Amino acid sequence: MPSEFALIERHFRRATPSARLGIGDDAALLAPAPGMELAVSTDLLLEGVHFLPQTMPEDVGWKTLAVNVSDLAAMGATPRWALLSCALPDADEEWLSRFAQGFFACAERFGIELVGGDTTRGARAFNVTILGEVPAGAALRRSGARVGEEIWISGTPGRAALGLAHLQGRIALAEPERSACLTALLRPQPRIDLGLALRGLASAAIDVSDGLLADLGHVLVASRLAARLAVAVSPSPTLAETCFLAGGDDYELLFTAPAERQHEVLAIGARLSLPLTCLGRCVAGPPGQLEVYTLAGEPVAIKARGYDHFA
Amino acid sequence: MPSEFALIERHFRRATPSARLGIGDDAALLAPAPGMELAVSTDLLLEGVHFLPQTMPEDVGWKTLAVNVSDLAAMGATPRWALLSCALPDADEEWLSRFAQGFFACAERFGIELVGGDTTRGARAFNVTILGEVPAGAALRRSGARVGEEIWISGTPGRAALGLAHLQGRIALAEPERSACLTALLRPQPRIDLGLALRGLASAAIDVSDGLLADLGHVLVASRLAARLAVAVSPSPTLAETCFLAGGDDYELLFTAPAERQHEVLAIGARLSLPLTCLGRCVAGPPGQLEVYTLAGEPVAIKARGYDHFA
Repeated sequence: MPSEFALIERHFRRATPSARLGIGDDAALLAPAPGMELAVSTDLLLEGVHFLPQTMPEDVGWKTLAVNVSDLAAMGATPRWALLSCALPDADEEWLSRFAQGFFACAERFGIELVGGDTTRGARAFNVTILGEVPAGAALRRSGARVGEEIWISGTPGRAALGLAHLQGRIALAEPERSACLTALLRPQPRIDLGLALRGLASAAIDVSDGLLADLGHVLVASRLAARLAVAVSPSPTLAETCFLAGGDDYELLFTAPAERQHEVLAIGARLSLPLTCLGRCVAGPPGQLEVYTLAGEPVAIKARGYDHFA
Repeated sequence: MPSEFALIERHFRRATPSARLGIGDDAALLAPAPGMELAVSTDLLLEGVHFLPQTMPEDVGWKTLAVNVSDLAAMGATPRWALLSCALPDADEEWLSRFAQGFFACAERFGIELVGGDTTRGARAFNVTILGEVPAGAALRRSGARVGEEIWISGTPGRAALGLAHLQGRIALAEPERSACLTALLRPQPRIDLGLALRGLASAAIDVSDGLLADLGHVLVASRLAARLAVAVSPSPTLAETCFLAGGDDYELLFTAPAERQHEVLAIGARLSLPLTCLGRCVAGPPGQLEVYTLAGEPVAIKARGYDHFA
């Protein structure tokens, strides 16, 4: 059986021209450009929790990196480097080679170099730490929203949760919805271009991983605000509508911006061919409080805001 | 049951005065000092692989961070920040609070701020990514050793492996050796002070995690050299001697330095009250080749150089 060092050499060592030192020493050496702050985030993905055992290894590889890239999108940062820890039940080289293919497809798409990592034997699990750059003071934080500002969401949240329900046999989606939802679940597209475009415009941002309402809640708590939403759902939401409100795992960006700059937000959406939808406004009130109405003004019954690993 | 957010707030949020932004957003924001390179490393620890299920949570917390600190010691870097991913089978707050106690004891000892992380439900596992600073160009790499240079080891390697054998019932240690070996296993002391002192003196360095001979092999391969050692073991090593040669998990530093600077190396050992032992010399030869002799010049039979997760 190949050693862990051989596995790393064979599947994970690529050129790292923008690092001072990449894979193969006790630590990588990186030098952020002058005037830049480093944005750093980490995510742990476990088989059976974050991805189903039967998921194609290429999709696991893509998503493992993509969910981390999404955190940098939410900061308005440019991704640069990543470190990858792998626990693997055995040295299944075909699985690993397909995982690496998906991982590096995402890395190349976003200009990321893999500069370090760790490999061990155990139940399949992956931890990525991602490092990006953002001009000092320009990062989009969760805490900057203000009363009266509009709340926006990118793309079409809810699809990933519907895709998961389909794979779990709880619903049966038909084409073309099935493909759209499975792609959203298995190949999420981090909104890096949107995050960069929102620097200097959005007052706060977060990526939607736990659920739209849950993640909005995090922004509101950090900004000490409440919100009033008017959304295209029924008073008693259907499954698809619940997935929209609380589904998570789509990695869209939720952000706030001054109402008088709405035309700038819409122009960004048009330039990126990405739907940007205004969900409502920030209001004064108990931090994190949410009032959700239909477009016709009826109150919406909210059962859950999103996913919590320990709730 | 407390939410994952409550768990993080309660056990892992501490002041992070040296970070631009710490725990609680999509990413941490860090600014290395001007002229500094960033050294970054990551390690994944699994229950049952890297620590026994019955290990005291304080010890797991200490070691989870310490093994990462050790990687920075081997680079001659000063540790600054860490990110921690936790998989936990349940929200056992007492276990977690004791883990955090050990983790932060190590963090405070080495001046490290916890700036981010991730929490999920699963079989107990921890991934730390550590970030440190080193003056540009001054890091100790594995690749700098040269023919004729001396090979040194700090401390008393082998104790951790003996401690593990004792806990597993394979041997029965008596005091005071038992305490020394269990402390080496459960509370490894990363050699940060030594790594800093070796900048400008050592030509290559590595921390011994896989085994003394295995990690020396990594230095030799990276430096394209062989080595000839004369060590205080018998021709057919005893268990304790095998633990010295191949035990790993002690997190001592192995380094090379020019023979004419031996007095400087010894002065550092004296100043730090840390034994530094010369093991032999780098020689020209097939990269990674090792010849090991007793102090009397007899060849030593080597069964294994160290530990490999997939060998």
